[in-house]
Amino acid sequence: MEAERSVGIVETKYFTFAEPPNEMVLDSGKKLGPITLAYETYGELNEDKSNAILILHALTGDAHVAGYNSPDDRKPGWWDSMVGPGKAFDTTKYFVICSNIIGGCKGSTGPSSINPETGQPYALSFPIITVRDMVRAQKHLIDHLGIEKLLCVVGGSLGGIQVLQWVVTYPDVVRLAIPIATTAQLNSQAIAFDAVGRYAIMTDPNWNNGDYYSTGNVPAHGLATARMIGHITYMSDKSMHRKFGRERIGEPGSGFNIDFQVENYLNYRGDSFVKRFDANSYLYITKAMDYFDLAQDGGGSLQKALANVKARFLVVSFTSDWLFPPYQSKEIVSALRRNNKDVSYAEIKSDYGHDAFLLEVEALSRLISNFLQYAGYAEECADASVF
Amino acid sequence: MEAERSVGIVETKYFTFAEPPNEMVLDSGKKLGPITLAYETYGELNEDKSNAILILHALTGDAHVAGYNSPDDRKPGWWDSMVGPGKAFDTTKYFVICSNIIGGCKGSTGPSSINPETGQPYALSFPIITVRDMVRAQKHLIDHLGIEKLLCVVGGSLGGIQVLQWVVTYPDVVRLAIPIATTAQLNSQAIAFDAVGRYAIMTDPNWNNGDYYSTGNVPAHGLATARMIGHITYMSDKSMHRKFGRERIGEPGSGFNIDFQVENYLNYRGDSFVKRFDANSYLYITKAMDYFDLAQDGGGSLQKALANVKARFLVVSFTSDWLFPPYQSKEIVSALRRNNKDVSYAEIKSDYGHDAFLLEVEALSRLISNFLQYAGYAEECADASVF
Repeated sequence: MEAERSVGIVETKYFTFAEPPNEMVLDSGKKLGPITLAYETYGELNEDKSNAILILHALTGDAHVAGYNSPDDRKPGWWDSMVGPGKAFDTTKYFVICSNIIGGCKGSTGPSSINPETGQPYALSFPIITVRDMVRAQKHLIDHLGIEKLLCVVGGSLGGIQVLQWVVTYPDVVRLAIPIATTAQLNSQAIAFDAVGRYAIMTDPNWNNGDYYSTGNVPAHGLATARMIGHITYMSDKSMHRKFGRERIGEPGSGFNIDFQVENYLNYRGDSFVKRFDANSYLYITKAMDYFDLAQDGGGSLQKALANVKARFLVVSFTSDWLFPPYQSKEIVSALRRNNKDVSYAEIKSDYGHDAFLLEVEALSRLISNFLQYAGYAEECADASVF
Repeated sequence: MEAERSVGIVETKYFTFAEPPNEMVLDSGKKLGPITLAYETYGELNEDKSNAILILHALTGDAHVAGYNSPDDRKPGWWDSMVGPGKAFDTTKYFVICSNIIGGCKGSTGPSSINPETGQPYALSFPIITVRDMVRAQKHLIDHLGIEKLLCVVGGSLGGIQVLQWVVTYPDVVRLAIPIATTAQLNSQAIAFDAVGRYAIMTDPNWNNGDYYSTGNVPAHGLATARMIGHITYMSDKSMHRKFGRERIGEPGSGFNIDFQVENYLNYRGDSFVKRFDANSYLYITKAMDYFDLAQDGGGSLQKALANVKARFLVVSFTSDWLFPPYQSKEIVSALRRNNKDVSYAEIKSDYGHDAFLLEVEALSRLISNFLQYAGYAEECADASVF
């Protein structure tokens, strides 16, 4: 641990709201409550509460962005490279918040949570949720923290999707928006990969129609298959070939045992994922991603959906990202520009594929710290007259 | 059926060789025999036996390239668009042959065949096979048909891989070679997709360590998962989005039932594949593809591996093919050119992805018929002096 640039030991906190009979109404019309959000914060909220940055996590992320939950932790939070003293999200300047999404399994209410009405895990009785529902729940947390305006919302992948939903649903609340490696809607191919992952989970006999919490047998193989597919889509042809090539660890004639290094890696990733993630959460969250279509907020037009946003934008994509390719970021940028919005766009040259949003720390840090500084300052000036 | 350009009704034939004690020795050192090859032929072998074209099929293909096996068949053979009177492989001029590969399940000896020693299906006691073994078996068939020299070997995907192996293993037998949408070795990403497919099959409880032929329960879900992954890699982002977009067939709130059109398509393809293909064959053939590395025939150098080939080449790739991308075809072309071989290269602009080798009929037909005519003629002249 690089002590002087780490946020150090942090505690995950929990906020519960939407207690019956005041449940949160979901996009589906169904009600959900009580809802707990697991969240972490780093840095201090300043006096006028103008320095809050909300980080949104990706599909399998959690609230633990930076630092360590215990001195024994081997690894820091998932975006530790970006959050801490002197880092892009400088915790000596900013108050950084991240919460686990609803539908998740890292402390926020999701299908593996106990349904208070039955005393049993929700499983498939958990309602279908949308990205808008995730964002709606986050807004409750922001209100709870007494923050009226967020300096910035930022995230990669599904995190970026949530950024887009935030600025559309709460245009007056967000000053700066940084959607990274993301899209206003998944294309057919991305939906297809999600669908195959779900198919693998739901055809695993241990899935048992979602009711596996008490059986002691989780749908490990189905979930591992889904994760392995996911991992391939997170890397690029080039980064995979550079990392694994055609290197083999098996003996010739080893039959169908693990043979190529890349197989070994995927198997390891699949297995370790099963230990930390809930299969039903995987179903609910990927479904929310598939359903996400920002244009729907504009009656089918992305431009109209973004007509009322007030945030300044930094949109970032990566050249080798083929899951949410640069052309999708450009569609967002075009729609913003047609609305005369203030938008910067950066397409970072990278071989890391979709994973680049976690790995291209240097390029991202430079872009983001400049954007926060310049646009944040511009915002302050604008604030005096406009807001 | 477009009667006048169809080869009409054709019969699948069977050729059995390598009867014990004269089994065929495989790359692994193991012996296999007897071996049966299912094959079909179209057109007539000319008197000097100089007009034979061997078509090699892809992963899940079979010997039935063109025409109909029965008047009731709803669909013709898998490359009917290319084989028939007046078509690219003009059956009024050429004698066209295709055999099902060993390891397959369409009439040739594979893991679902009965092991004469036990009277039971081989299952996992079937030896690991390589592309070289597939080609070696095909050579027995060519010998059996009394053909000393093939005018042309041609195939797409794994078919193209076999083409490459043919010209290297039997340089004196092949005059013209047309490897299409193929590679001299799978990259890490392609191996990874194969590996996940195998994982899905082998973790399906019905797989039962390969021993499912007598249980009545095939590993349908695992095999369908593998096929669904495959289908995504055969199409392109663009062709998928054009075909399915984000179209939905499910009602909002339909939970985890099939919802998007693309899910429906993949499920259908997965299910129908299970009815026609053997899961163990899928394991053996994908493994052979993963192991294939033409450079090994040149001690690690692709150029050396191709140093002794005598065929003239037409190498074809497709711009949107991301499974065996154009850069891999270009590597083959470069290696041939460094050896001063006669090679034409065409990169066809297509949105169809890897599937383009089955779909870009017009562009392929023009290229191939010209190549057969010109290069075939050049060969005849060269023959007089060189061969």
